[in-house]
Amino acid sequence: MSILIKNAYIVTMDKDGAGEIENGFLLIENNLISKIGDNSNNAADSISAGTVIDAKGAILMPGLSNTHTHLGMTLLRGYADDMALQAWLETKIWPAEANLTAEDVYYGSLLGCLEMIRSGTTAFCDMYFFMDETAKAVEKAGIRGCLSYGMIEFGDEEKGNKELATNEKLVRDWQGKANGRITTMYGPHAPNTCCQSFIGRSKEAAERDGVGVHIHVLETEAELNQMKENHGMCSVHHLDAVDFWNTEKIPVLAAHCVWMSDGDIKLFAKKGVTVSHNPISNMKLASGIAPIQKMLDAGVSVSLGTDGCASNNNLNLFEEMKTAALLQKVGTMSPTALPAKAVVEMATVNGGRVIDKQTGVLKAGNKADMILVDIQKANATPVFDVYSHLVYAAAGSDVKTMIVDGKILMENYKVLVMDEEEVMKKAKECAFSLAERAKPKK
Amino acid sequence: MSILIKNAYIVTMDKDGAGEIENGFLLIENNLISKIGDNSNNAADSISAGTVIDAKGAILMPGLSNTHTHLGMTLLRGYADDMALQAWLETKIWPAEANLTAEDVYYGSLLGCLEMIRSGTTAFCDMYFFMDETAKAVEKAGIRGCLSYGMIEFGDEEKGNKELATNEKLVRDWQGKANGRITTMYGPHAPNTCCQSFIGRSKEAAERDGVGVHIHVLETEAELNQMKENHGMCSVHHLDAVDFWNTEKIPVLAAHCVWMSDGDIKLFAKKGVTVSHNPISNMKLASGIAPIQKMLDAGVSVSLGTDGCASNNNLNLFEEMKTAALLQKVGTMSPTALPAKAVVEMATVNGGRVIDKQTGVLKAGNKADMILVDIQKANATPVFDVYSHLVYAAAGSDVKTMIVDGKILMENYKVLVMDEEEVMKKAKECAFSLAERAKPKK
Ligand SMILES: [Zn+2]
Ligand SMILES: [Zn+2]
Repeated sequence: MSILIKNAYIVTMDKDGAGEIENGFLLIENNLISKIGDNSNNAADSISAGTVIDAKGAILMPGLSNTHTHLGMTLLRGYADDMALQAWLETKIWPAEANLTAEDVYYGSLLGCLEMIRSGTTAFCDMYFFMDETAKAVEKAGIRGCLSYGMIEFGDEEKGNKELATNEKLVRDWQGKANGRITTMYGPHAPNTCCQSFIGRSKEAAERDGVGVHIHVLETEAELNQMKENHGMCSVHHLDAVDFWNTEKIPVLAAHCVWMSDGDIKLFAKKGVTVSHNPISNMKLASGIAPIQKMLDAGVSVSLGTDGCASNNNLNLFEEMKTAALLQKVGTMSPTALPAKAVVEMATVNGGRVIDKQTGVLKAGNKADMILVDIQKANATPVFDVYSHLVYAAAGSDVKTMIVDGKILMENYKVLVMDEEEVMKKAKECAFSLAERAKPKK
Repeated sequence: MSILIKNAYIVTMDKDGAGEIENGFLLIENNLISKIGDNSNNAADSISAGTVIDAKGAILMPGLSNTHTHLGMTLLRGYADDMALQAWLETKIWPAEANLTAEDVYYGSLLGCLEMIRSGTTAFCDMYFFMDETAKAVEKAGIRGCLSYGMIEFGDEEKGNKELATNEKLVRDWQGKANGRITTMYGPHAPNTCCQSFIGRSKEAAERDGVGVHIHVLETEAELNQMKENHGMCSVHHLDAVDFWNTEKIPVLAAHCVWMSDGDIKLFAKKGVTVSHNPISNMKLASGIAPIQKMLDAGVSVSLGTDGCASNNNLNLFEEMKTAALLQKVGTMSPTALPAKAVVEMATVNGGRVIDKQTGVLKAGNKADMILVDIQKANATPVFDVYSHLVYAAAGSDVKTMIVDGKILMENYKVLVMDEEEVMKKAKECAFSLAERAKPKK
């Protein structure tokens, strides 16, 4: 199986390689990129391929990676907004989650995959419940998913053992499945919902199994204060004591990181932790402004995430890219903070690296995960700078074609891997039935 | 000419009237809404109309109003980003503007109109140069434009006279044209680029001509400091001394208002000034966070604007709605700040009111300016709350149909009023030629 894409404006994100190619071609053989080059002299004409895509008027770039979400929650899009955090959790989100079924999570996940395909996200990191269902949805949808089970033990050892066993089963059943599109991580939920030793045990299990860990850290000032009060130090140092941030053997993914001190940032840079920055969720829940420019300056690898649909309310990484750049500028009162190219790197290179080392950059030998972004649109007229365009002017709905692992998932705005209407219908039914079940009993 | 829209989920934004109608119909006769009602009993079946639109699976709502932009600048989308403000202005924006031709502004404006049609904006307030060209573009595009000439006099009386004469000519030539779709205002640029007495004279001219005034106010802390240093008071009080904020006779539109004190807010509420909040531009240029929740609490009428494409970089009011809600929440550290419905009011009711009193609300007797928002999409599944959907989950590209002044401008994603490809081609040519001319001479 081979696919030749030609006449594209290629944004490789390959720093030491091709950079941008104004009129380029890219050849996919099986699930890998085998060749990439300049096509201004019609070099691609001599290449034969099973499928040829003329990408004139489009940007060809690595697919985006959403490094923090809770895909089952896609059903809770718009279920509750504009509320104080505790009331939102206690009266709306938790009661809904208590009523979630496996079927809900399957259709919520499939709907989430559909939305990601439509908006350019080829890979994501998830942490939720009923993860078999999310895995099945990923298998069907054709994108890449790095799945962890959200373990919450609240210092209860017995519950902790069960949670670890559930995550371990996910790893055993799904790691490397779907030709490697499905990978797994351990997901200790957060430093204030799991005790230090449990989080340490999750890390050991992950190292034993050769998979990563995914955790929420310092999302709110409340967490920071609680940790300081209970442990005399912040979450980052509390977990450093059990060597949680050590990435010598496995990747470590830390979501949010809003309330990081300069010392925390230095530690993350030294350890090689990947941060998932979720600016829309952080703004919507009024969590605060993460010091992303400081992190980049210190050498931390920062990626982007949407968080779950209850706090966003979509899975659109183009919105997240723009918001990240804007928030950092107003947060530091400097218009030069977080420039466009750095943002695109976060959404491609840095996000890809933590999910699959062969993604996030278009170069020969890497996996064939990529998107075509339509620039024959009013909002794409003119394009003076391609990175500026992608961050400040483009929309998720400009993504016209997606290829993951060498397979075309969407072509010229037509999704090929699922019946969209059917998925939306089923997801709607599940969502409204869930809301009905979650209503307070009289 | 009559158009019947039926089976729509209608969001009327009519507080004292119909509110939301789950399955509604709306009848347009000539350029006015003549009837609006519930269609759950197929009441619309007995109505005959020249054109019938089945709006099943769509939200019918007032078109959005963009109350601050510089449409000619659409050509400068992505021309310069991520720069310090003075360098951005002095080395990029001003040299480009110095090279602008009438043709540039015509195609920039037409491109801007096209983008607004595609993203749900039926009306806008503009302040720029070569305003005849923007007027011609508005005439052609079919939307509603409230146009002012951006007068800058820097205390030079002779230049001031010329500027006033140019704006006066715009008013004389275009006020009420295109069946009232084109209206005009006087546009004294800002309190730090025009002297107090000149701004006072603009206000007098506007009152004499019965049109509004449009001004930039307190966009940056630098302006606040400069005004305090030179005049011992802020811009708001400096202009209050020449009764600029008095709205008894004409509407007064103040853009940005980032650095407003509580006293300024109180004054604006008392005077009836309409604020144009431009959150994306304020973030991108690191101008600051406008105290919008405070303004609403005080009773100020706040609308939304995108500002020009050089500082956004698009004209998408759906992005602006979401960003407004998010920014206010993180700015006040309260997730209950600026809830979704208040944001939709800003983009429809409050914006409409300052442009044309018969717009912004769907009710009988008002002008027929409205949009259909497609909700048969992944990002619109499910819709638990229509306002939450519009602000947090919807995209400008979900707008499928637009009607302005009783005329269909876009139907089922097809723009009917211009040749899109031709407009984009011409705009691109103008943009690249302009950039070439604006390059520093050796
Ligand atoms: Zn999360
Ligand atoms: Zn402006």
